Amino acid sequence: MYSFRNDYSEGAHPAVLKALTDTNSEQTCGYGLDPRCAEASDLIRRQCAAPDADVHFVVGGTQANLLVIHALLRSFESVVAADTAHVNTHETGAIEATGHKVCSVPSPDGKLTPALVRAVLDRHDGSEHMVHPKLVYISDTTEVGTVYTKAELSALYDFCRKQNLYLFLDGARLGSALTAEGSDLTLPDLAELTDVFTIGGTKNGALFGEAIVLSAGCGRANFRAYMKQRGAMLAKGRLLGLQFSALLDGGLYLDIARHANEIAQLLREGIAELGYSFASDSHSNQIFPIFPDAVVKKLERCCEFESNGPAGDGFTCIRLVTSWATPRSAAEQFLKDLAAM
Amino acid sequence: MYSFRNDYSEGAHPAVLKALTDTNSEQTCGYGLDPRCAEASDLIRRQCAAPDADVHFVVGGTQANLLVIHALLRSFESVVAADTAHVNTHETGAIEATGHKVCSVPSPDGKLTPALVRAVLDRHDGSEHMVHPKLVYISDTTEVGTVYTKAELSALYDFCRKQNLYLFLDGARLGSALTAEGSDLTLPDLAELTDVFTIGGTKNGALFGEAIVLSAGCGRANFRAYMKQRGAMLAKGRLLGLQFSALLDGGLYLDIARHANEIAQLLREGIAELGYSFASDSHSNQIFPIFPDAVVKKLERCCEFESNGPAGDGFTCIRLVTSWATPRSAAEQFLKDLAAM
Amino acid sequence: MYSFRNDYSEGAHPAVLKALTDTNSEQTCGYGLDPRCAEASDLIRRQCAAPDADVHFVVGGTQANLLVIHALLRSFESVVAADTAHVNTHETGAIEATGHKVCSVPSPDGKLTPALVRAVLDRHDGSEHMVHPKLVYISDTTEVGTVYTKAELSALYDFCRKQNLYLFLDGARLGSALTAEGSDLTLPDLAELTDVFTIGGTKNGALFGEAIVLSAGCGRANFRAYMKQRGAMLAKGRLLGLQFSALLDGGLYLDIARHANEIAQLLREGIAELGYSFASDSHSNQIFPIFPDAVVKKLERCCEFESNGPAGDGFTCIRLVTSWATPRSAAEQFLKDLAAM
Amino acid sequence: MYSFRNDYSEGAHPAVLKALTDTNSEQTCGYGLDPRCAEASDLIRRQCAAPDADVHFVVGGTQANLLVIHALLRSFESVVAADTAHVNTHETGAIEATGHKVCSVPSPDGKLTPALVRAVLDRHDGSEHMVHPKLVYISDTTEVGTVYTKAELSALYDFCRKQNLYLFLDGARLGSALTAEGSDLTLPDLAELTDVFTIGGTKNGALFGEAIVLSAGCGRANFRAYMKQRGAMLAKGRLLGLQFSALLDGGLYLDIARHANEIAQLLREGIAELGYSFASDSHSNQIFPIFPDAVVKKLERCCEFESNGPAGDGFTCIRLVTSWATPRSAAEQFLKDLAAM
Repeated sequence: MYSFRNDYSEGAHPAVLKALTDTNSEQTCGYGLDPRCAEASDLIRRQCAAPDADVHFVVGGTQANLLVIHALLRSFESVVAADTAHVNTHETGAIEATGHKVCSVPSPDGKLTPALVRAVLDRHDGSEHMVHPKLVYISDTTEVGTVYTKAELSALYDFCRKQNLYLFLDGARLGSALTAEGSDLTLPDLAELTDVFTIGGTKNGALFGEAIVLSAGCGRANFRAYMKQRGAMLAKGRLLGLQFSALLDGGLYLDIARHANEIAQLLREGIAELGYSFASDSHSNQIFPIFPDAVVKKLERCCEFESNGPAGDGFTCIRLVTSWATPRSAAEQFLKDLAAM
Repeated sequence: MYSFRNDYSEGAHPAVLKALTDTNSEQTCGYGLDPRCAEASDLIRRQCAAPDADVHFVVGGTQANLLVIHALLRSFESVVAADTAHVNTHETGAIEATGHKVCSVPSPDGKLTPALVRAVLDRHDGSEHMVHPKLVYISDTTEVGTVYTKAELSALYDFCRKQNLYLFLDGARLGSALTAEGSDLTLPDLAELTDVFTIGGTKNGALFGEAIVLSAGCGRANFRAYMKQRGAMLAKGRLLGLQFSALLDGGLYLDIARHANEIAQLLREGIAELGYSFASDSHSNQIFPIFPDAVVKKLERCCEFESNGPAGDGFTCIRLVTSWATPRSAAEQFLKDLAAM
Repeated sequence: MYSFRNDYSEGAHPAVLKALTDTNSEQTCGYGLDPRCAEASDLIRRQCAAPDADVHFVVGGTQANLLVIHALLRSFESVVAADTAHVNTHETGAIEATGHKVCSVPSPDGKLTPALVRAVLDRHDGSEHMVHPKLVYISDTTEVGTVYTKAELSALYDFCRKQNLYLFLDGARLGSALTAEGSDLTLPDLAELTDVFTIGGTKNGALFGEAIVLSAGCGRANFRAYMKQRGAMLAKGRLLGLQFSALLDGGLYLDIARHANEIAQLLREGIAELGYSFASDSHSNQIFPIFPDAVVKKLERCCEFESNGPAGDGFTCIRLVTSWATPRSAAEQFLKDLAAM
Repeated sequence: MYSFRNDYSEGAHPAVLKALTDTNSEQTCGYGLDPRCAEASDLIRRQCAAPDADVHFVVGGTQANLLVIHALLRSFESVVAADTAHVNTHETGAIEATGHKVCSVPSPDGKLTPALVRAVLDRHDGSEHMVHPKLVYISDTTEVGTVYTKAELSALYDFCRKQNLYLFLDGARLGSALTAEGSDLTLPDLAELTDVFTIGGTKNGALFGEAIVLSAGCGRANFRAYMKQRGAMLAKGRLLGLQFSALLDGGLYLDIARHANEIAQLLREGIAELGYSFASDSHSNQIFPIFPDAVVKKLERCCEFESNGPAGDGFTCIRLVTSWATPRSAAEQFLKDLAAM
């Protein structure tokens, strides 16, 4: 049975695996101080047109989020995030475990705007009896599959700078975001319009790995000490640099993300043609169709996916996720199965 | 130039790499809930003769240490460790960052004994003004390359049980320990004579990975929630199970550790024959010879290694580490170079 | 100018001050291990009809809240609270600073019900990717001046027990709650219908002090170690016991709280008679009238109070707080001034 | 039975109690934003000749220590302290509970010197695998009753500035230190020769209270937010300001500390004349005589004191502490009783 459960079901893209295999017997320094990480960092700085950026590689997204937030904030400072944000819902309180409150705000489309952030600021009076919102966390794609436009990100970053807030963009699915219909953002835009962002490898062709890109403007000294303290410094750090070089050099990263989006949109269009609706307007590699419960039960016998919970009146929302590895045939089979129900 | 800098300089043992490659396109559930992790856990339980043990896989050793300690201890409880212990010196305060004090005690050979632990207990009166020592942390091999005998571990575990202390053995270099001359411990012994221990993959043939083995006796409920909260749950968890199965099935893990020890002992004997002494009595894959400063300078032109600091009177202690990948020829060349100085 | 700013503007009730003065030269053990604390604890256990309760005294309310929550919860467990709850808004992230998330839920009247708690539980699926709600925090009186009935508290506690949740009632203004019109709760009810609650001294006649009453059912071992670790163990602990005995013995505590409520209700009725409305239906010692902005400006020249923020359309909500020390004449003068505007 | 157990056995000096009583019905703002705290802060700045210092008042010493250390340090930075230091031994891991390691160093007389701090720095190589020592904690008087000279403090502060370390002096017993034989330090010296220090009220005439004096050079922004977050902001903050004004205005603070020292030295000389020795060379209000166990048993029937543990060969070290309240007659009786044994 094919699984649309997530975009980390398989191993690595063959080019990544080849890079790991080809260099397996190389001896290098540990902990990310090796030439492979240096190469990948340089490549990222070039592709981001951000020669002053600091780049660090970690294994996972929760690690990246808690490190960035803990390194940048003081104890009484808090994070502003959409209520659906990964840091607010799906990291078992990882941010709070570093001592920081997440001030969440309801967002219908998973995105933050100056007005939504303003609403959080308005609840906080700057007194010593309240946390001080200091970092705005967004994700692109968002947890509901939507993406930011350059105009939206510019407006938000302008607002953040005026309010003396850091803007942190979680790019766990950045490949999908940058290649989604409706997105006009590029890596240099991200470097210019955020204080820190991540480039997700795990969900787009790597065995694992997130690259953290910190601009010169944010308090980033001793970031590696934070990494080590939180258990986020990989001994064979070389593996991270290698994978990012394999993905980013030559544009593979965007190419395979585009493939994932295309398959997802194939699903989306096919499902829409059959008359079903969606919980969010996603043009990325996650889509959220709503089906009658009976249809969901039948689909469970055809393929694997996650339920997103009841959608009222005998309907259920499910999540379908595609990846660099999803064959077109899997989507076609899904649609065929669905049409037959 | 050959590097004796550490045992994580290279990639993975070919059998591990093959397992990763062969299964690369498999689709599995994420986060360690896949069949590969289940297989590896079962294998470990069998090899440890510990059917009731819980097994969890994490990427790195600092993660394993902070997770175990934080999950088992309450806020006011502390860790007892040798002053040379990894958790006391080389984890950037990772344990304290989870809120727990490390009560260290000087240990000439890197090992703890009932008497040394007793010395820490005697400094603490059980009052609410002091931390309560609750977990004894040891490593095998130790940070200075020594190993525990079964008699030593039995004595320590007996003491811990009488004092109501957890015993946690950090097995980052467990392969080397179990196959070192002078060790009579086995995996079943470890399961019987500790409350929790780890089986290190990173330093013995894996790309990365530590298996945490928790006995039924210790407070281990919801360990996975701690893992997720600390960013220690690998999305493609399957990679961890696969590697441990590849290493442990058929005894590869011990075989390649034995090889590392043999090369280290070749070095050790050769260096001793040339009249040099050692900072510790190590029969494992790390040795600590002491050379005149001038010799150290010459050696730096022949190979890579880490300095362990001045050893008095114009002498310096260095650390030489071998691994599953170290060829006999590298050791022979080292000895030839040294003899020529 | 009289201040209705809060109920901790003055020193202590004369009976409390007398107790402190009369015993000033007594020598006692420190840190709460003295006969005065023992007497007060016994008195509280008797008045609560809870012979098995543990009683601890701390200086302030934020201390009490962070101690109780941190001592009872494990790292991945969270607090459920109304969005207006003190722990969610006015403690500068004190709970998060101990590592725990506060899962807040909008509550129009500042109270929690089984349905509101259920809404939080429904957002959490028990998986290791989410925090586990484990403790329900309520306050009585609430932050908006409302109070719980026995039926409401019983229903909530029943629900909590079924869901395996702790129920913690913050009684910073418990005197006002127990003597408010509409309340039918008593100290024995609180001991029976919560797992832990506090009896607030600071806001009802003491110089400072909160008594924490822990039932036998909750994980309360080593509570004093938590107190010391968080800087919440008063050296001259005797001062806390003495004050609670002075307040509770003979019923002074409830008598002076009743006085505060009466003055607040005098204000409330007078303001209502003049045609103004209120932001919440409070019969306790805090009331929240809504005035035209111009009236608020004039009132600021007559007395001191805090603004609760804009109430729309040129109106502002203010907070008026009375205490054991507020003379009837201050309320009468306020009403006279208001009537003249 | 008279108690020499500690210097916080009694209530407040009569002048402090009178100040509290005289102002009991004053209405002021809460949380230390009142005129009484402003007056006391000004007085402290004047007496310290430190017009740019920030002054904050908290209830207790552990609060002061954990606040200062947590507010000044980043997560990976550590404290250097003598092994006997209060923060290392008697605060139940309060510093570690804020996430910071205490790097302790054996000190025979409880004091730190540049050489001792250097020894800690030498164990840390500045790498990201180790904590970064950043703040030197000392106490005056020390935990064994010794005091710093101006020359000693100058040398230590010079060293700290060269090494880019903060120097924090815990003055829980500062009155006793400044008036002890052998001390030539003054309040202005402390303001000049430390980055932050405390003036202890609890152990010298106040009901409770420590004044934290932060120099302009240290990262002290938002200190009040840290205070609130850690439950260290007293609602009726006025009580703290009042007490410090009562003690410091007119020199009462030093006068009563001198009295405590004189009584302690009376004891010391009398005990020495009877041929007994001491565990430390203390000229302050704590002395540590060593008696045969049989004598200790007899003394326990005459007065109260704490044991400092076995001193070898059938001897025990005890601690005798005097305070502003200790009458000369209590010391004379002790010596008479001792002489009769």
